[in-house]
Amino acid sequence: MTSPSNILIVGSVAFDDVETPAGRRERSLGGSANYFAMGASHFGPVQLVAVVGEDFPADHIETLKARGVDLEGLEQVAGDTFFWRGRYGADFGDAETLDTQLNVFADFQPKVPEAYKRSPYLFLGNIHPSLQEDVVDQVDSPKLIGCDTMNFWIQGEPEALSKLLKKINLLIINEGEARLLSGEKNLLKSVELIREMGPEIIIIKKGAHGAALFHPEGRFFIPAYPLAELQDPTGAGDSFASGVMGYIARHDNIDLKTFKTALIYGTVMASFACEGFSFDRVAALHLEEIEGRADEIKALISLD
Amino acid sequence: MTSPSNILIVGSVAFDDVETPAGRRERSLGGSANYFAMGASHFGPVQLVAVVGEDFPADHIETLKARGVDLEGLEQVAGDTFFWRGRYGADFGDAETLDTQLNVFADFQPKVPEAYKRSPYLFLGNIHPSLQEDVVDQVDSPKLIGCDTMNFWIQGEPEALSKLLKKINLLIINEGEARLLSGEKNLLKSVELIREMGPEIIIIKKGAHGAALFHPEGRFFIPAYPLAELQDPTGAGDSFASGVMGYIARHDNIDLKTFKTALIYGTVMASFACEGFSFDRVAALHLEEIEGRADEIKALISLD
Repeated sequence: MTSPSNILIVGSVAFDDVETPAGRRERSLGGSANYFAMGASHFGPVQLVAVVGEDFPADHIETLKARGVDLEGLEQVAGDTFFWRGRYGADFGDAETLDTQLNVFADFQPKVPEAYKRSPYLFLGNIHPSLQEDVVDQVDSPKLIGCDTMNFWIQGEPEALSKLLKKINLLIINEGEARLLSGEKNLLKSVELIREMGPEIIIIKKGAHGAALFHPEGRFFIPAYPLAELQDPTGAGDSFASGVMGYIARHDNIDLKTFKTALIYGTVMASFACEGFSFDRVAALHLEEIEGRADEIKALISLD
Repeated sequence: MTSPSNILIVGSVAFDDVETPAGRRERSLGGSANYFAMGASHFGPVQLVAVVGEDFPADHIETLKARGVDLEGLEQVAGDTFFWRGRYGADFGDAETLDTQLNVFADFQPKVPEAYKRSPYLFLGNIHPSLQEDVVDQVDSPKLIGCDTMNFWIQGEPEALSKLLKKINLLIINEGEARLLSGEKNLLKSVELIREMGPEIIIIKKGAHGAALFHPEGRFFIPAYPLAELQDPTGAGDSFASGVMGYIARHDNIDLKTFKTALIYGTVMASFACEGFSFDRVAALHLEEIEGRADEIKALISLD
């Protein structure tokens, strides 16, 4: 194996008030960049670009550092950190958003530190597509640019999103978002239409039903890891992306075979994310647990 | 390969009026036994126990015979054939039932012909659980008894269903039915509870999201075959069961490895069922098409 390559992540760092059928937690650490960095740090070096307010806890900054996350790109500015409050129904499906306060995020202008600009792998967490594009324009031709987005931007910022999609290689979105983006209900047709928008690799997340990879060399469909007990699905999508990008960067290869195994690791990280509130479970993981669950998933889909 | 073993199917034979986003058809041939027999006939000999009315078309009886289906157990009696009318929404999900007329089915008492009683494989299509149990009681210890049921019986005939479940080996039901039967939302817990009711092998169908096998030797999760165009999902579940049971009977083995591949063939048959109204597509299949699609699904889930 080659030595793991750097991944640059840009996204949100947030406080979340979360209520699920398993309980509730206030001022839980969250945000796409936070979840992604925690997950990807198990695979190799991560560089983070995000903004937090004065209220952000110093000990969490230490936790990220301790996990090897480079925080030169984390700005701390006057004001409060981005805040989200949401509630999950009995099926742990899509959350209902009860409150969103952008706070310091309202004026966020991502600045990529000089030392990050040659990072070969870039992941654009779910933030305004113009900010995502800003970051793309600041880096030197990465080998792979992955991207997430959401209904809010698909409906509210279609032009900015359209510009961005031409500049990325990999789009990781959920099934409902793919339908909304393409205007097409059928999965295959929807993916065809999205591919024409720019990204040559598309991963459709289907929550408890797994994920589907559409790669120029072929396709790969994988189930979710079945869990008897869930705590909090918040961040499962970012954790999934962290496993995919983390595995790709570690092996420094974007061919179909590498991507297939990357989906296994994405599935692993998403499942661990759901097993605890915030990224409690993900932050505390040992490599053997990750490999053990990856082996379980391989067995779950193996014909032998 | 050993020579294929007989499968005995009991279930409904019906006329369906079906409306889907792709069109509508009146007096379409349907019913669980009809769909199952058509699908399983591609794998080996099938024996059918069902009832039809005087209005049932002689040419369809010839079609079944031409496909090698043994019809000694098909009763034709005075009155009209069972009739169902339903409509599918834009997502081709669960059908809305608009009309059901039991007709000759109201007094159906399945009689298993002497020549069928030693059939090693039995599938109980979705009919009243007491009728399903009647059939079980008429046969000589098959190697495998598979069974389908539906919400209507789970809610309306819990005691009859409970008696039946103790006598079967394999239950093939959809996710919503599993939740209703077990009273448990979580898939793993739901399967545990259902296993305690009797069947040691459980297959959960998840429609467009695939299927999950729970076998005493292990588990296997498989995606659905992705289709760009659907015509009519009616009978997809029975077609799935026909592929599973057909493959099992053909290989005369109920171990995990055989069951895993059987799920591939179940997925194949369900996908073909959806590609045409009634069993138009399934009846016209050639073996190479079945094997070709099975290979496609194997590629779709292979890590290589």
